[in-house]
Amino acid sequence: MAIITLTTDFGEKDHFVGATKGAVYSELPNVRIVDISHSVSPFNIPEAAYIIQNAYSSFPKGTIHIIGIDAEINQENKHIAIKLDDHYFICANNGIMSMICSEIAPEKIVEINIHDKIQTSFPVLDVFVKVACHIARGGTLEVIGKTIGEIKPIKNIVPYVNDDKTQIIGRVIYIDNYGNVITNIKRGFFETVQKGRSFEISARNYKFRKIFKKYSDLIDFTIPEDKRHDEGKGLVVFNSGNFLEIAVYKSNSATVGSASSLMGLGLMDTVSVKFIKTP
Amino acid sequence: MAIITLTTDFGEKDHFVGATKGAVYSELPNVRIVDISHSVSPFNIPEAAYIIQNAYSSFPKGTIHIIGIDAEINQENKHIAIKLDDHYFICANNGIMSMICSEIAPEKIVEINIHDKIQTSFPVLDVFVKVACHIARGGTLEVIGKTIGEIKPIKNIVPYVNDDKTQIIGRVIYIDNYGNVITNIKRGFFETVQKGRSFEISARNYKFRKIFKKYSDLIDFTIPEDKRHDEGKGLVVFNSGNFLEIAVYKSNSATVGSASSLMGLGLMDTVSVKFIKTP
Amino acid sequence: MAIITLTTDFGEKDHFVGATKGAVYSELPNVRIVDISHSVSPFNIPEAAYIIQNAYSSFPKGTIHIIGIDAEINQENKHIAIKLDDHYFICANNGIMSMICSEIAPEKIVEINIHDKIQTSFPVLDVFVKVACHIARGGTLEVIGKTIGEIKPIKNIVPYVNDDKTQIIGRVIYIDNYGNVITNIKRGFFETVQKGRSFEISARNYKFRKIFKKYSDLIDFTIPEDKRHDEGKGLVVFNSGNFLEIAVYKSNSATVGSASSLMGLGLMDTVSVKFIKTP
Repeated sequence: MAIITLTTDFGEKDHFVGATKGAVYSELPNVRIVDISHSVSPFNIPEAAYIIQNAYSSFPKGTIHIIGIDAEINQENKHIAIKLDDHYFICANNGIMSMICSEIAPEKIVEINIHDKIQTSFPVLDVFVKVACHIARGGTLEVIGKTIGEIKPIKNIVPYVNDDKTQIIGRVIYIDNYGNVITNIKRGFFETVQKGRSFEISARNYKFRKIFKKYSDLIDFTIPEDKRHDEGKGLVVFNSGNFLEIAVYKSNSATVGSASSLMGLGLMDTVSVKFIKTP
Repeated sequence: MAIITLTTDFGEKDHFVGATKGAVYSELPNVRIVDISHSVSPFNIPEAAYIIQNAYSSFPKGTIHIIGIDAEINQENKHIAIKLDDHYFICANNGIMSMICSEIAPEKIVEINIHDKIQTSFPVLDVFVKVACHIARGGTLEVIGKTIGEIKPIKNIVPYVNDDKTQIIGRVIYIDNYGNVITNIKRGFFETVQKGRSFEISARNYKFRKIFKKYSDLIDFTIPEDKRHDEGKGLVVFNSGNFLEIAVYKSNSATVGSASSLMGLGLMDTVSVKFIKTP
Repeated sequence: MAIITLTTDFGEKDHFVGATKGAVYSELPNVRIVDISHSVSPFNIPEAAYIIQNAYSSFPKGTIHIIGIDAEINQENKHIAIKLDDHYFICANNGIMSMICSEIAPEKIVEINIHDKIQTSFPVLDVFVKVACHIARGGTLEVIGKTIGEIKPIKNIVPYVNDDKTQIIGRVIYIDNYGNVITNIKRGFFETVQKGRSFEISARNYKFRKIFKKYSDLIDFTIPEDKRHDEGKGLVVFNSGNFLEIAVYKSNSATVGSASSLMGLGLMDTVSVKFIKTP
């Protein structure tokens, strides 16, 4: 049974998600629809890019991913379908796919051209669902679009490194449900620049000289549990997606606070890493 | 495989939705359950009416829709099941269905009378699930209720037109995830009164003399992209459900603002249309 | 088809839920995944315990419940799998299961020991999914862990009764989507202590001397509907899970208010019941 995932900024309340699913089942009774997220901030391309990049590869090969963010077609915002890493992605050509594509080259990109048959003010439901069902039935991308060579990029997805490789300047690209602050500095990139040197990570006036393997490595288990005060302490990890993350132990924005709330870190804020010469 | 949809005010956190799904699968292992919304504001009948009206018709004929809003039974709030447009709806007789029924006549309405067998403080789980599974198995409405002639209406779903047909006075009935403001003025109604005349739409002290086909028709593509300032500009469209909607281009309540936040428009506020005699 | 449910504090926005589902379908194409809740407050064990307790038993026997709250493994926080009431539960040994286990004795508890094969910073996806799929395929608990005798308890789940049985002192353990305030006083416990006596329930300076069967029993139907002012009035019921609940009729925190907002009741606040000698 084909799997179609949905990643949108439709929110949890409106009828958009339900209507989209109804349209899929009306076309294709035997399909599995899986929600990835409908709570992307409205029109927020980098957020959507981060979410889909971290979710897609857990799904079986052949999965079809509909991404409904800023999907209204116009002369500058065309619809595309991409085959990459044996997954299919259907979205607007607005930069959403550039984060994934910067790591894995697409096998095929087409600009969807079935619109002359479809007049619509709800393109995800009318166009993306049609394309997804076409692919789910085994149809090829060539039938629904013409091949193009590249997609629109988004800015600020790659961190900056200075010439003498002593510093990385990255940015906050996502803040997760726990208020953890995720940067665009990936483990592989970090280690390539680091070459084994010591380092100091700076975010506002907070400094970190260690990257933990997991959150609870912060705990000193020799201290009795009722004498510890670890909740709310800051730390740095590479998260499960291999992004450098500034976190707070057992963070909760509503109680002990979170990296975002305690350190005042927001989207697009700077996080830098200074490497120290080993003497 | 039968499809059962869920539209409730249960929220995303509590156990109510999960428990309801568990009860369906316990009765009927081979069924598809689809969430339409669980984030209807508590006890908000017009919101639920708008959501179900805009979602149901994308689903295949024969789909069964459970609507769990204000569903506690009492002498003034009975449970009903409706067949309409080849879909089934199970809900309390509290006005939720009057928006759909004002456009399409129901084929059959029954007042559910299986309650003498069921003592419950969770009627969606105990009663609605039983009725839905009965229908999914091919059962008829007559078996679970007695036919009734009409349902309870809700107020303010039809806009007012003055005697000389120069003005429509409508109301805001829904505010969507983007903060767009949706009125009860539908395209067909509007055009019947308009008869080709020019018009001026007023909401608070904002005026609009044009209805766009889609949001990005607002853009002047002759201006270079980096010199445009279109985000946050107000416009009027008929949305994908054919309701007159006051919107903001790429609106986001948290950043550029939305029609609701920028123009101070809330539920039940007045939106009027004045038609101008062509000389 | 096996059913796997998910109860987590992952939230609705991040990729965690989607990625977990993708991992399940990659292991086991023919399985049904049902969301119970992803909006548990971060690291909130009692909330998760209340939600899973009230949801699980609606599901068919044999259902597998993944509970992803505070699931990072460390020397004090091991992973366990429990068979209880013919359901399976996979979670960290952090107290989540102690509410259910205080009512129904587990048939089997194992401490999961497949970790030497799995290095992970996303244990729900990497470990819990593996265990769930193992059980779904008919595997036994003994294969994935070693039997242990008991689980970690959580505090404050049982209310206090004074020596002469004239008073119960309970606590607020959950606040639901309507702002209703749910205590840890269960109907069976209440009635055993009550022995038919009159009572007075106190929460802050609010007193109640009656427990309603359902919310709308508050209404005096002899008064014409348009002359009633019942919305926003407080009352006490045993809810559908048999917990003593302080509620507000047709409550909505954003409009008429809720028990939580109107009476200023929060998590862990005290609710007491005084029993009065019948003379």
